[in-house]
Amino acid sequence: MLFPSDLAKKIQLIVFDFDGVFTDNRVLVLQDGTEGVFCSRADGFGIEAVRNAGLEVFVLSKEQNPVVGARCKKLKLRCIQGCDNKDEVLIAEAARLEIPLTNVAYMGNDINDLECMKIVGFPVCVADSFTPVIALSKYITKTPGGHGAVREFCDLVAEVKRSKK
Amino acid sequence: MLFPSDLAKKIQLIVFDFDGVFTDNRVLVLQDGTEGVFCSRADGFGIEAVRNAGLEVFVLSKEQNPVVGARCKKLKLRCIQGCDNKDEVLIAEAARLEIPLTNVAYMGNDINDLECMKIVGFPVCVADSFTPVIALSKYITKTPGGHGAVREFCDLVAEVKRSKK
Amino acid sequence: MLFPSDLAKKIQLIVFDFDGVFTDNRVLVLQDGTEGVFCSRADGFGIEAVRNAGLEVFVLSKEQNPVVGARCKKLKLRCIQGCDNKDEVLIAEAARLEIPLTNVAYMGNDINDLECMKIVGFPVCVADSFTPVIALSKYITKTPGGHGAVREFCDLVAEVKRSKK
Amino acid sequence: MLFPSDLAKKIQLIVFDFDGVFTDNRVLVLQDGTEGVFCSRADGFGIEAVRNAGLEVFVLSKEQNPVVGARCKKLKLRCIQGCDNKDEVLIAEAARLEIPLTNVAYMGNDINDLECMKIVGFPVCVADSFTPVIALSKYITKTPGGHGAVREFCDLVAEVKRSKK
Repeated sequence: MLFPSDLAKKIQLIVFDFDGVFTDNRVLVLQDGTEGVFCSRADGFGIEAVRNAGLEVFVLSKEQNPVVGARCKKLKLRCIQGCDNKDEVLIAEAARLEIPLTNVAYMGNDINDLECMKIVGFPVCVADSFTPVIALSKYITKTPGGHGAVREFCDLVAEVKRSKK
Repeated sequence: MLFPSDLAKKIQLIVFDFDGVFTDNRVLVLQDGTEGVFCSRADGFGIEAVRNAGLEVFVLSKEQNPVVGARCKKLKLRCIQGCDNKDEVLIAEAARLEIPLTNVAYMGNDINDLECMKIVGFPVCVADSFTPVIALSKYITKTPGGHGAVREFCDLVAEVKRSKK
Repeated sequence: MLFPSDLAKKIQLIVFDFDGVFTDNRVLVLQDGTEGVFCSRADGFGIEAVRNAGLEVFVLSKEQNPVVGARCKKLKLRCIQGCDNKDEVLIAEAARLEIPLTNVAYMGNDINDLECMKIVGFPVCVADSFTPVIALSKYITKTPGGHGAVREFCDLVAEVKRSKK
Repeated sequence: MLFPSDLAKKIQLIVFDFDGVFTDNRVLVLQDGTEGVFCSRADGFGIEAVRNAGLEVFVLSKEQNPVVGARCKKLKLRCIQGCDNKDEVLIAEAARLEIPLTNVAYMGNDINDLECMKIVGFPVCVADSFTPVIALSKYITKTPGGHGAVREFCDLVAEVKRSKK
């Protein structure tokens, strides 16, 4: 068995699902149909930390949703939306970046993340994930999605990278 | 006594109340009077699961409220609003679909759901329902409304339908 | 010592503070300065119940705030805003309605409610009130503000009125 | 070792971080990119209390964000935004007000507050702060950010000032 720290050591790319990971999986629906989501200011420092450690990061979201783009733009995060087969996109992107899938972490929360979690070296999920997702994960954050789960995992990876040097 | 799984087996139609079931029963009120509600992204997968299992689903809401329409449109859920006698509408709709009331599940949370819960075969409520509603229910979700209660019940029904085959 | 039920028996008028009572005392601030508040759909049934029992109800808020007006309009609640001396307004209104102050309940949560709570027969507060408010209250709801505290208290009063007949 | 009351006695200026202190560190992101934050109505009474006790107060925020300005305007709080080196601005402002840094309290929640917390006499943080911030604090509020943490600390300082007289 490998510890999270062993798995984190070789990670070169972190891919994030959006809803339930950067958000608490809730959606605010206004009467004109406008949607809003609830994110954590804490996550920005985590993204910064792994970037400073030299990692690649991007967001992969099945649904095409303007709210995902709005949040990613703020965090200066690349964001691939509206892809039917997330695993195929992940494989293509990792190949393009010349990063082996064993060196990729994927962070999710629900059943549409399973296909990606099965193919990466370090599948991760938030505290309040659905059971099949928890069953596949090699690290489960103590923090729920949208309350700093991204920060927690990024801080862990950045810390491991620092201590490795 | 029948177990939830026995009751779920024959369900052909699930009727949902909106506020407190798809939402956490709270409402955001902006200063111009615009309303918003808080829903869970998790519920969409549940609706999809029972639809794939061949069930009919719709939302029945006493109040006429644009926010209900906005959310239902997103989930591609049929939505009947502004009906004074929810039980009469439910009876008419079940008849139109040729589904006996014993094969209908109704999911609610508050006293205006009691009339419908009394006439269906499988009355269900969310974890944070009012006491008279809990007293009538044959299944109480572990999840509160707006945090995936719809998902929990739909997953249960879909699972029972699958294992039945 | 009098039980809440004894105090509730003679209540003819319930006066509510708004923020922290109908809301969870939080405010959503959008970047253009627009404010929003978080209310509970449950409270409407409570207001209806005490009205059906023949009681008068209104909202008394120190601050002039469009969001208070928006919510009260929806609940068809009379709303007196922007009054510097809430106790004076309460006294004048009770006199106008010919209801003695001993037959008035006032529901609050913070220090600007103390002046009113001292002069009415039945001072009430929400579960998450500030200590000096709790110290003056003759009933403390189990429910926090904005999560159905108004409903809880109104249901109690309506129930007492019903059983009295 | 000094008790919080000893430290509070000589405080003449309180400087606040915004996100995570006046807010719960979450951000609402609407689909057009509009941001909103969640504050507590309770905090206003705290600001009022320390002002009545003769203290200076202002908000110091690294990021330039319209939502910070909107909330501070409502609370009539001076707000310095978009400063890269918060500690330098704090030093300059304290000098301008002729208040020694030992008589300054700074309230924060995250790692970008550390530089300011190290130079003031009374570093304070909210209940849900990150570990390095808690490690530096001489008072940790019982209340989390955005739920009245500002109120709790201001009430403490105002109470100490009153009892001192």
